[in-house]
Amino acid sequence: MTMNQLTAFMFSTEAMQAVFSSSSTVQRMLDAEAALARAEAHCGVIPPEAVQPIADQCRAERIDLDKLAQAAGPAGNLAIPLVKQLTARVAEADAEAAKYVHWGATSQDIIDTGMVLQLRDALDVIGRDLAALADALAAQAVRYKATPLVGRTWMQHALPITLGLKLAGWLDGINRHQQRLADIRSRLLFVQFGGAAGTLASLGDKGLDVAAALAQELGLQLPDTPWHTQRDRITEVATTLGMITGSLGKMARDVSLHMQTDVGELSEPVAEGKGGSSTMPHKRNPVGCAVALTAAVRVPGLVATMLSGMVQEHERALGGWQAEWDTLPEIAGLTAAVLQQMVQVAAGLGVSEDRLKQNLDATHGQILAEAVTLALGAKMGRLAAHKLVEKACQAASAGGRHLREVLGADPAIAAELSPSDLDRLLDPANYTGQSAAFVERVLATHRQIKNTPRHQE
Amino acid sequence: MTMNQLTAFMFSTEAMQAVFSSSSTVQRMLDAEAALARAEAHCGVIPPEAVQPIADQCRAERIDLDKLAQAAGPAGNLAIPLVKQLTARVAEADAEAAKYVHWGATSQDIIDTGMVLQLRDALDVIGRDLAALADALAAQAVRYKATPLVGRTWMQHALPITLGLKLAGWLDGINRHQQRLADIRSRLLFVQFGGAAGTLASLGDKGLDVAAALAQELGLQLPDTPWHTQRDRITEVATTLGMITGSLGKMARDVSLHMQTDVGELSEPVAEGKGGSSTMPHKRNPVGCAVALTAAVRVPGLVATMLSGMVQEHERALGGWQAEWDTLPEIAGLTAAVLQQMVQVAAGLGVSEDRLKQNLDATHGQILAEAVTLALGAKMGRLAAHKLVEKACQAASAGGRHLREVLGADPAIAAELSPSDLDRLLDPANYTGQSAAFVERVLATHRQIKNTPRHQE
Amino acid sequence: MTMNQLTAFMFSTEAMQAVFSSSSTVQRMLDAEAALARAEAHCGVIPPEAVQPIADQCRAERIDLDKLAQAAGPAGNLAIPLVKQLTARVAEADAEAAKYVHWGATSQDIIDTGMVLQLRDALDVIGRDLAALADALAAQAVRYKATPLVGRTWMQHALPITLGLKLAGWLDGINRHQQRLADIRSRLLFVQFGGAAGTLASLGDKGLDVAAALAQELGLQLPDTPWHTQRDRITEVATTLGMITGSLGKMARDVSLHMQTDVGELSEPVAEGKGGSSTMPHKRNPVGCAVALTAAVRVPGLVATMLSGMVQEHERALGGWQAEWDTLPEIAGLTAAVLQQMVQVAAGLGVSEDRLKQNLDATHGQILAEAVTLALGAKMGRLAAHKLVEKACQAASAGGRHLREVLGADPAIAAELSPSDLDRLLDPANYTGQSAAFVERVLATHRQIKNTPRHQE
Amino acid sequence: MTMNQLTAFMFSTEAMQAVFSSSSTVQRMLDAEAALARAEAHCGVIPPEAVQPIADQCRAERIDLDKLAQAAGPAGNLAIPLVKQLTARVAEADAEAAKYVHWGATSQDIIDTGMVLQLRDALDVIGRDLAALADALAAQAVRYKATPLVGRTWMQHALPITLGLKLAGWLDGINRHQQRLADIRSRLLFVQFGGAAGTLASLGDKGLDVAAALAQELGLQLPDTPWHTQRDRITEVATTLGMITGSLGKMARDVSLHMQTDVGELSEPVAEGKGGSSTMPHKRNPVGCAVALTAAVRVPGLVATMLSGMVQEHERALGGWQAEWDTLPEIAGLTAAVLQQMVQVAAGLGVSEDRLKQNLDATHGQILAEAVTLALGAKMGRLAAHKLVEKACQAASAGGRHLREVLGADPAIAAELSPSDLDRLLDPANYTGQSAAFVERVLATHRQIKNTPRHQE
Repeated sequence: MTMNQLTAFMFSTEAMQAVFSSSSTVQRMLDAEAALARAEAHCGVIPPEAVQPIADQCRAERIDLDKLAQAAGPAGNLAIPLVKQLTARVAEADAEAAKYVHWGATSQDIIDTGMVLQLRDALDVIGRDLAALADALAAQAVRYKATPLVGRTWMQHALPITLGLKLAGWLDGINRHQQRLADIRSRLLFVQFGGAAGTLASLGDKGLDVAAALAQELGLQLPDTPWHTQRDRITEVATTLGMITGSLGKMARDVSLHMQTDVGELSEPVAEGKGGSSTMPHKRNPVGCAVALTAAVRVPGLVATMLSGMVQEHERALGGWQAEWDTLPEIAGLTAAVLQQMVQVAAGLGVSEDRLKQNLDATHGQILAEAVTLALGAKMGRLAAHKLVEKACQAASAGGRHLREVLGADPAIAAELSPSDLDRLLDPANYTGQSAAFVERVLATHRQIKNTPRHQE
Repeated sequence: MTMNQLTAFMFSTEAMQAVFSSSSTVQRMLDAEAALARAEAHCGVIPPEAVQPIADQCRAERIDLDKLAQAAGPAGNLAIPLVKQLTARVAEADAEAAKYVHWGATSQDIIDTGMVLQLRDALDVIGRDLAALADALAAQAVRYKATPLVGRTWMQHALPITLGLKLAGWLDGINRHQQRLADIRSRLLFVQFGGAAGTLASLGDKGLDVAAALAQELGLQLPDTPWHTQRDRITEVATTLGMITGSLGKMARDVSLHMQTDVGELSEPVAEGKGGSSTMPHKRNPVGCAVALTAAVRVPGLVATMLSGMVQEHERALGGWQAEWDTLPEIAGLTAAVLQQMVQVAAGLGVSEDRLKQNLDATHGQILAEAVTLALGAKMGRLAAHKLVEKACQAASAGGRHLREVLGADPAIAAELSPSDLDRLLDPANYTGQSAAFVERVLATHRQIKNTPRHQE
Repeated sequence: MTMNQLTAFMFSTEAMQAVFSSSSTVQRMLDAEAALARAEAHCGVIPPEAVQPIADQCRAERIDLDKLAQAAGPAGNLAIPLVKQLTARVAEADAEAAKYVHWGATSQDIIDTGMVLQLRDALDVIGRDLAALADALAAQAVRYKATPLVGRTWMQHALPITLGLKLAGWLDGINRHQQRLADIRSRLLFVQFGGAAGTLASLGDKGLDVAAALAQELGLQLPDTPWHTQRDRITEVATTLGMITGSLGKMARDVSLHMQTDVGELSEPVAEGKGGSSTMPHKRNPVGCAVALTAAVRVPGLVATMLSGMVQEHERALGGWQAEWDTLPEIAGLTAAVLQQMVQVAAGLGVSEDRLKQNLDATHGQILAEAVTLALGAKMGRLAAHKLVEKACQAASAGGRHLREVLGADPAIAAELSPSDLDRLLDPANYTGQSAAFVERVLATHRQIKNTPRHQE
Repeated sequence: MTMNQLTAFMFSTEAMQAVFSSSSTVQRMLDAEAALARAEAHCGVIPPEAVQPIADQCRAERIDLDKLAQAAGPAGNLAIPLVKQLTARVAEADAEAAKYVHWGATSQDIIDTGMVLQLRDALDVIGRDLAALADALAAQAVRYKATPLVGRTWMQHALPITLGLKLAGWLDGINRHQQRLADIRSRLLFVQFGGAAGTLASLGDKGLDVAAALAQELGLQLPDTPWHTQRDRITEVATTLGMITGSLGKMARDVSLHMQTDVGELSEPVAEGKGGSSTMPHKRNPVGCAVALTAAVRVPGLVATMLSGMVQEHERALGGWQAEWDTLPEIAGLTAAVLQQMVQVAAGLGVSEDRLKQNLDATHGQILAEAVTLALGAKMGRLAAHKLVEKACQAASAGGRHLREVLGADPAIAAELSPSDLDRLLDPANYTGQSAAFVERVLATHRQIKNTPRHQE
C-alpha cells in the first residue's frame, strides 16, 4: 500500500481506479498481446493453433504482479518482464505456441496500445461525468435563471447578476469541454504497432495487414505511421483534462467563496461524515471544493510534465516516454475525482435565498450605482454622471447612509431622476440585464450537445 | 528597451513581434472601441454622429504609450488609462461624442476582445508557417523515402529505418497540429462583451443586439454568454501551441543528435553569420535546434501558468486573468520562432549520404541481428534464435569481428541460412519494412489537409 | 516597445527594470570584458597597454543595441555579436589592443558572469524590499498584537485569533526568506571563466591566476571549476524567489479575502488613480493583491522552466542554458513588483475595527464553540462535550438563535458551566491563546535578523 | 495495487518506499499523537495515566488502512478518520484515556508533524545517497583526472578536456547540494502544533509548554509560530530535491550521450536483467539514465505544484495544502530512484579508452584548432590567426585531409610554427589546460564536506 492508496478516495474515484489499477494496466497490455496473436494468425503470420494457448494466458490474474514490478526496475519497462511471464505461462501449456508470443512487436507497441485502451475507458468515465455535470448545472440554471445575486469583480461587489447566469457560465465551459472530448477521440484512438524501430520489418510484407487487423481487433484505428516518439496524441488528453480541471477549479473557487461564513449564499450538500471539523462542531467544510482546488493546483504541473516529455529522442525515448506512465493516470484520477465532487455539488447545491437578498443590500445601494450612473449619463453624459454618483457613493460611505437617501437629497440628481425612478433603479431584479437571455443561449447549446450522437458514445 | 528586445530575434519572429507589439496591442483594443461605437450607433444606443469622432481617434499612434504604461501600474490594467486617453482625445475634437466612448463596456471586454483579435492574427502566422513546414517536410520525405538510416532506440543503434520515415514521423505530428488549429479557431474567435458584471445591464434591452453587431463588425462570433472568467477558449491556444512546440522540440532534438560531430548524418543549412563559434573555426553550431529546444524547455511552464490561471474568482479575477497578458504573447513568440527555424532546417536540411552508410555499418552488422533472428526464428522458434544470435553478437563484439563472419562460421546457423541468405539479411536496404508505405500514408494525409478549405484560411 | 513594456510597471519595478534593461545587460557583459582585460594584463597574459583602449569602449551606450539584437538571432547568443562590435570599436582607436579583446574567454563566460553581476544587483533590490516589508509587518504586528480577528479555516469561521498573529505569520516566512537570501549569495556570487570547453587551455599555465584576478576585479569568488552546464547556482535564485513569491501570494490572498465587500476587515491603502473602477465609482479594487496573485500564478511555471533547463548537454547546452535568459529576469521582475506592492499594503494597511468586531459575532457565538467544548470536555470528556455542543450549535443555527442563549438553556450544560462562565468563554478576547506569545517570538527573530551583519549587505 | 506500485521500483527505491508507505505515513502521525499525549501529561494537561493506553494503540498495524482510506474521502484528510479509529481503539482498553486522544490538536498539526518526521527520514536517505554518489564520483575523478576526452559544446566537438574534469563537474554540483541539505534541515525540522486556528487556545496558558515538550519528544525544534499556511519550510524540500534531480538529469544526459553507439566512450555497468532489448540482442540500453531523465522531466512540474500551492487561504487552506500530500512523496521517491541509479552508474562506469582516443581524432585534428589559433594568435593577433586557421579547417574538411597536414603545408603558418610545434599543439594531452587543477579543487571541497560534522548526520 502506498501513500497514493491512502489518498485514492480523495484524488481519484472508484471508476478511475478501476481503469488504472495494476491489474487493468496489465490486462490492457495482455489484451494487446492476445489481439496481436489473433491478427497475426488471421494474416497467416503465425499458425492459427498458437492463438488459443496465447489468448488463454492473457489474463491479468495469472500474472505475478509483485514479481513483475520488481523486474520492471532493471528492465526499464513493464512489457519486457510481462512478456517473459506470459511466454513462460504459454510454454507450460503449449511450447510451440510460446514461440509466437509478442511476435514482431516491441515493448512500446504493447505499452502504448494498452495505454490507449485505458485512456478510451478513462474518457468514457469522464465523458459520462461531464454529461452528468452538464445536466445538473442545466437544471439549476433553469431553476435560478432570474434569481438576483451579487456579481463580484476583483472580489468586490460590482453589480447584480442572476444565480442562473453564474450557473450558465460554469455550464458554458462544460459545453465546450464535451466538444473537445469528441475532437480528441478522433486523434487518440489509434493502435501503436511498429516493431523495434517503427518499420514492422520483422513481419516482412505483412506488416501493414497485421497492423490493420490488430487495430480492428481492438476497435482502434490504424495510424498513418507508428507514433512511438510523436506524443501529441497522448499529450492532448492531458491538456484537455487540464482545461477541464481548470474550469472545475474555477467553479469550486466560486462555490467556496459563496460558502464563506461571511457570505453564506451557496453551500455544498451535507453528507454523512463529510466536511465536519474535529474540534469545531458548527463548521461545514467545503470538502468537495477542496478536492477540486487541490486538483487545480496539481494538474497544471502534470500537464507541463507531459509537454516537456514530448521532446523525445529518435525512435524510442529516454525519459520523455517513461514520464507519461504515472503522470497520465494521475491527471485522469484527479479529473475524475473533481468531476465526481462537482456533480454532487451542482446537484445538491444549497442556496440561501435570505443571504442572497441580504448581501445584495450590503453596499446600501451602491451595487446599483452603475444603474443610476447610466440613467443619469443618458441625460448629462457619462463622465459627469460618473463623477456625481461617485461623489454620492463617497458621501454614503462616509456617512454610513444608504445610497438611495444620498441620491434623493442631491438636487442635481433630483432634477433628472424622480423618487420612483430611483426606487426602480435601485431594485436589483431590474438590473440583471441579459442574464436570462444568456442562460437560455447556454441551455440551447447544452440541448444541442445532448442531441449530437458523437457526444453520446 | 528590455532584455526581451535583445532576445526578440531569437525567441520570436518579426511577424509575431508585429502581432504583439505595444502598438498592435493598443490598436487591437482601439479596434474594439471603434467597432463598439459603430455597433451601438447601428443599434440606436449612441447617436450616429458620435461614431466618426471616436473612430478617428482609435489609432495607436495617437496614444502616448509611455504614459499609458505608467498609468497601467496603479490602474491594474491597460484599458482604464487607454479609455482615459482616448476620451480626452475625442473630447478635444468633439465633446459630445466623448460621452459615448467605451459606452456600456468594461475594461475586460476591450482587453479580451483585443487579445482575441491578436490571437487571430497569431494563428494566421502560425498556420502559414505550419503549412510551410509541412510542405518542406513532405518534399524531403518524398526525396528520402527509401534512403536507409540507422534507427535508434534508447539512443542505441537498433534497426535500419529510412530517412523518409523519420521525416514522415515529424510531418505526421504537423498534420495533426493543422487539424487542431482549425478546431480551436471554432472555439476562440468570439467577441467578449458583457459590461461590468457580464449582464450588459447598462444597455437595457439592446445588450444582445449590440453584442451581435459588435461581433459582426470585428468578424468574430457571438458567444452564448460572456466568458470573462471562463478561460478555456484562451487557454486552449496555449495548450495547442504547447503541443506544437513539443513536436518541434522533438524534431530539433533529433536533428541535433544526427548533427553531432560523432554522427554527422544531418545538418542545419549553413547561413551567413549563423552558428559560427568565436574560438573554434571548425564548428557549426545547430543554432536553429537550440532555439527550438529552448522553446521546448520554456513553453511547458508557460502553459502550466495558463492552466493555473483558469481558477478565477467570480465575475472578474484577481491574478489568473492578468497572468495571461504576458504569458500568451511569450508562448506565441516562441512558437513562431521555432517554426521559422524548423522551416529553414527542413527546407535546407543537409544530408551526408556517406555518414548514413558508414553509420549503418558501425555495429559491424549487429544492427541487422533482428533480421537474422527472425529468419532463424521462423525455423527454430523465436527464443532459440534469439539466444543463438545473441551469442553471435557477443562473440562478434568480444572479438571485434563483423557479425556476418561470426554467423557464417556457426554451424547451427549455417544449417538454416546460406551465405547468400546472410548477405541479403545483412543489407540494410532489405530491412526497412513498411517505411515507404508509412511515408506514403502520411503524405496522403498531408495532401488531403492541403485540399481541405478549413485549413486554408 | 513590446507588450512587456506596456505591463512593465505592473509586473516589474523601476529598480528591477534598471537591473535587467537591455542597457544594463550589455553593460554587465562589458564589465566582465573590461575586468578580463585588466586581469589578463595583471597576470602578464596580454600587454598592459591594451587595457585602457579596451576598457574605454566597454560602455553600453557605445553599442548599437538594435544591431546587436538582430545579429543575436543567427549567432544564437548576445556575446558573439557584442564581442564583434566591441572589437571593431577598440580597433578604431587601437588596432593592436583590439587583438586582445575577449582573450581566452568563451561567450558563456561573459554572458554568465554578466548574469551573476545582474543577479547580485537584483538580490540587493530584493533584500532591501524584503527588509522593508519585514519592518512594516513587524510594526503592524506590534500594533495589533492583541486585536481579536476571526480565524478562518477552510474559509469558514473557526476560532478567534489576533490580527497580530496573522501579521506575524506573514513576517515569519519573510524572516526565513531573509536567511535564504544570505545562504544563496554564498553559492551564487562566483565568476564564470573556463574558455571554450571549461579548461582555460588557451591561457596556458596562467588560467587559474587570471580566473582569480578576474573574480577579484568583479568582487566575485573563484569557483572550484567552471559551471557552464552545472546550473544549480542560478536555478537556486529562481527557486528562492519562487518561494518568496509564494509567501507574498499567500499574504495577498489573505488581504484580498479580508478586503471582500462581504468581509471588509482589511483594505489596501488608497492611492490616487489606484484601484478605481471605470464604471462602478463605489469600488476599491485590491490592485496590489492582484499583482501579487498574478505573480504567484506565473512564477511557479517559470521556476519549473529553470529546473527543466538544468538538464544540459556536455560542456555547453542546447536549450537549457538559453531558456534562462528571459526567464530569470521575468522571475526577478515579478518578485520585485510583488514586494513593492506588499510593502505598500503592509505599511498602509487599512483596518476596520468595526468590521473585525462585527464579524467575530457573525456566527452568533458559534466561533467560540471550541472554548465551550473544551471547558465542558475537561469535565465530561471530549467526545461527549463535542456532541453536546454540536447539538447546541445545530439548534442555534436552526432557530436563528445566539449560541449563548441555547447553551444557557441546556440543563446538561448549565450543570457544568455557570452563566458567567459562559460569558467569559464567549468573549473572543479571552480565547486568543498564545497569539501574543507567538507574535513576540516572531518579532524576536526579526530583531535578531536585523542585527545580523550578513543580512545587512 | 495501483499503477504506482507497478512502477515503484523504477521511480522510487525500497528505502524511500519504506519512508512513504501507507503504513509509515500512518505511523508517523501516530508517533505525533503518542508524543502529544506524553507532552501533555508532562505539562499536567492530561492525566499521566492516560499516556500509556494511548501510546499502546499508536501502532500502524492496529489501524485498518482500507477503512481509513475510504473515510478520508468524505472527511477531506487522513487525520480525522485516523483519530476516530485511534480513539475507538483506546476506548476499548481504557474509556477514560480515550477522552485525551488528540487533545488540543487540529488535524493539520498531526498531518504536518507526521510529514516533517517522514521528510527527516527522507532527507537521511537522500543525504546518505548523495554522500555515496560524491564518494563514487570523487574516486573516478581521481582515476581519470588526466585522461583526455572530447569536450563538446552545442553537441559538437570543441576542445579536449579530461574525463576527470567531467566527473568533477558532476561532483561540484553534488558538493553544493550537500550544503543545501544542511541548510534546509535548519528550517524544516520543526514541529507543527497550533490547534484549530493556530493559537493553542484550547490549552489555556500551557500551550507553549506543551508545544516545546512535544517538539522535544520528537527531536524537532519549536517554531516561532505555527506555520499551517506558511509552507516555505516544506516547499524548500521540494525545490532542493528539484535541483538535485536537475543535476542528476544533467549527469544522465551526459552519460547517455557518451553511451550512444555512435560515441561509445562511457557506459552504464552491466547487470543481470538490466537494459536488455527483447528483440535486439546486441543492445545495452542506458536504463539508469532513462530513470534519471524521467525524473528530470517529472520533478519540475511537481515543484511548480508545491510553489503554486503556497498561496493558502487564512488559517487553513483549500487545495494548496492538500496538493502537497502526494506531490512531496513523489518528488522524494523520484529523487531517491535517480540517486540510486547514478550511484551505480558512477561506481561502475564503463570507460572505453579506445573510443576516447579514437573520437579525439574524429575531426582529424580540428578539435585542436584553438590550440593552433592561439599559438598563432600570440604571434599575429587573434583575428588574423582565427581567419587563417578557419581557412585551414575548411580546406581540411573539403579535402578530407588531416588538419596537421593542411597546416604544415601553409607557408604563412609554417613561418610561425615548426613541425614539432604542430605535433605538440595537436596532441590532446597537451591541451587540457587547468582540467587537473579544477579536479583537485573540487576534490578538496569534497573532502572538506566529508569532514564537516553537519553533513554527517
